[in-house]
Amino acid sequence: MNFFSSSFKLGILGGGQLGKMLLYETRKWDIRTKVMDASTDAPCRIACNEFIQGNLLDFDAVYNFGKDVDVLTIEIENVNVDALEKLEHEGVKVYPPTKTLRTIQNKATQKLFYTDNDIPTSPFTRFAYTSEIEDSISNGGLRYPFVWKSAQFGYDGQGVKIIRKLADLDELPNVECIAEEMINFKNELAVIVVRNTVGKVKTYPVVEMEFHPEANQVEYVICPARIEEAVAKKATEVALRVSEKLEHVGLLAVELFQTKDDEILVNEVAPRPHNSGHYSIEASYTNQFEQHIRAILGLPLGKTKSKVAGIMVNLVGAEGHMGDVVYENIDAILEMDGVTPHIYGKKQTRPFRKMGHVTIVDEDMGKARAIAQKVKETIKVISK
Amino acid sequence: MNFFSSSFKLGILGGGQLGKMLLYETRKWDIRTKVMDASTDAPCRIACNEFIQGNLLDFDAVYNFGKDVDVLTIEIENVNVDALEKLEHEGVKVYPPTKTLRTIQNKATQKLFYTDNDIPTSPFTRFAYTSEIEDSISNGGLRYPFVWKSAQFGYDGQGVKIIRKLADLDELPNVECIAEEMINFKNELAVIVVRNTVGKVKTYPVVEMEFHPEANQVEYVICPARIEEAVAKKATEVALRVSEKLEHVGLLAVELFQTKDDEILVNEVAPRPHNSGHYSIEASYTNQFEQHIRAILGLPLGKTKSKVAGIMVNLVGAEGHMGDVVYENIDAILEMDGVTPHIYGKKQTRPFRKMGHVTIVDEDMGKARAIAQKVKETIKVISK
Repeated sequence: MNFFSSSFKLGILGGGQLGKMLLYETRKWDIRTKVMDASTDAPCRIACNEFIQGNLLDFDAVYNFGKDVDVLTIEIENVNVDALEKLEHEGVKVYPPTKTLRTIQNKATQKLFYTDNDIPTSPFTRFAYTSEIEDSISNGGLRYPFVWKSAQFGYDGQGVKIIRKLADLDELPNVECIAEEMINFKNELAVIVVRNTVGKVKTYPVVEMEFHPEANQVEYVICPARIEEAVAKKATEVALRVSEKLEHVGLLAVELFQTKDDEILVNEVAPRPHNSGHYSIEASYTNQFEQHIRAILGLPLGKTKSKVAGIMVNLVGAEGHMGDVVYENIDAILEMDGVTPHIYGKKQTRPFRKMGHVTIVDEDMGKARAIAQKVKETIKVISK
Repeated sequence: MNFFSSSFKLGILGGGQLGKMLLYETRKWDIRTKVMDASTDAPCRIACNEFIQGNLLDFDAVYNFGKDVDVLTIEIENVNVDALEKLEHEGVKVYPPTKTLRTIQNKATQKLFYTDNDIPTSPFTRFAYTSEIEDSISNGGLRYPFVWKSAQFGYDGQGVKIIRKLADLDELPNVECIAEEMINFKNELAVIVVRNTVGKVKTYPVVEMEFHPEANQVEYVICPARIEEAVAKKATEVALRVSEKLEHVGLLAVELFQTKDDEILVNEVAPRPHNSGHYSIEASYTNQFEQHIRAILGLPLGKTKSKVAGIMVNLVGAEGHMGDVVYENIDAILEMDGVTPHIYGKKQTRPFRKMGHVTIVDEDMGKARAIAQKVKETIKVISK
């Protein structure tokens, strides 16, 4: 297959900010692209060769979209896998493979997959319905606090709740779910593994999420993680095992806990470019988006090392602001050394909505970290 | 002016590969763009918000295109400056300013500008018509060899010829031109200067063109140039003087000769992102395209330092090949460390046509140079 020819076509399901960043790379290599998204305003609408408006969860929409592409990938997991399976049988190359996607899409299945394959993860119980949890608590089968996660459609922090008392269960949907033991972790880490169509594998350096000391919210994604060599090695090995057992193709972001005892537990995975790899655009020899494309097209994988230290800060809507977005003080952060804002192009802000991210790079990690803090204190995503 | 709002519009005249790379950056910041190019197949057609097909040299086409944009820039100098001047008077911000563009567009005017402003350049004579040159030779006013350059439309090596004997003049067009003394240079260097709308200025490191030992053709653009500190300092000072005297806004690529006596002479300038700055996408803290946008929008300028050593190799059509393009051995170069090909998306190759470029980056310049040579020996732009 000649990917650089005009007869080749790459399909992407989902036209959001991840797809948009993926499209930069297809432009670099002049690869023809076709994108489907539910919104006619999707950020990917421009920069792809063909845009189709359609529901990613609808069998016919996905099937019809995929029929004339050579390789099909995703920027979001919540897509109709039955349609992908049919396309796969008909010869379309679907990456991540539908088998992988099925395992990941349902959080209960994902957890069972870890335990079946001796991959360390936090203890959990699966429930067919949320309403069954109360019994389990009264029987002593479950102790507070624990983490409730909806098995389906748990994208990006939705469908997750910490349960500290019975009443916390009250407003949850009555769906298939898991209850996970809450891990008292020392660090939250992530490892991006990339595996191409012929089974070649590389890993990116371990990254670390730094939390706000009070708000218990991730503030910085830091590459490389400031952890001991032995812990980094263990984290990388666990991530490689997940990728191998999933027979994954493309990028796989593996989110991990480092416990107080330096155990490594898999939290969850994303089979696509991921927030924890955004730093790579500015810091790595090969950014995660180019790497994903190399992998799914069966091209040789690029160097995963970093040129410089990288820190990523998410740009989220400020509390108390809703409406037409304004990036207050963006000039001031552009004045700082090695600072690159990425604006996703959503016209409306609301509290905590992901509106973009900022990367800070420097030869010196300490300096990058100091600048990142200044960035965080300076820029505000507000409404007009 | 809020550049990140949907009411702002950036116009770009020219929709070729430079415009395409400029558009990546506008997408990063979600800046609305409108592009005009003569070709309906222009690489910029996708990735801009609005595309207009039109002749860049036509007054009405340029004027009508520019009327509803806030800031107007170029990716090629050969545009109708009269129309830009009218737009400028009507309040459109045109960068580079039309005054600068007029000085640069005509090579005779450009040379006179250097001598008027004590900027070192090679000795030259201006002729209203090529036919006048013969007289000057018989009078002893001009000695072989010299370089003939058409005053108008000398983009990218067209309109330039080395004259070694009278017969070499034969097939030249009878137009306004200059005859330049041929410089016996030690190095060809370039310095990119960036100046924003409020007069803030930064320079990129000096780059060096390495020539093929026999073919007398640039093979590698190398950053930083492997020259003495004092020479780099002098080159930077000369480039800064050119930018200051031109009152330029945006990127200005200043091409220079380092003579055998370490004199620095200005060869010519380009008031836009330039081939000599392509390495910056992978090597610099702020690439030249983002930097140009920062400058013309009046934003703070980014850090111009490099993260790592960078080398750029142009991908040109191989001799003896014409027709549908094939990038032979592109897989093999993707296997090499720190190698990024950029494919411009022209469907047809012909001998020496610029089809793309490849950047090689590494912490170690020696290693980057060795890989660059392997790249050059491996990839071939051929026809089917």
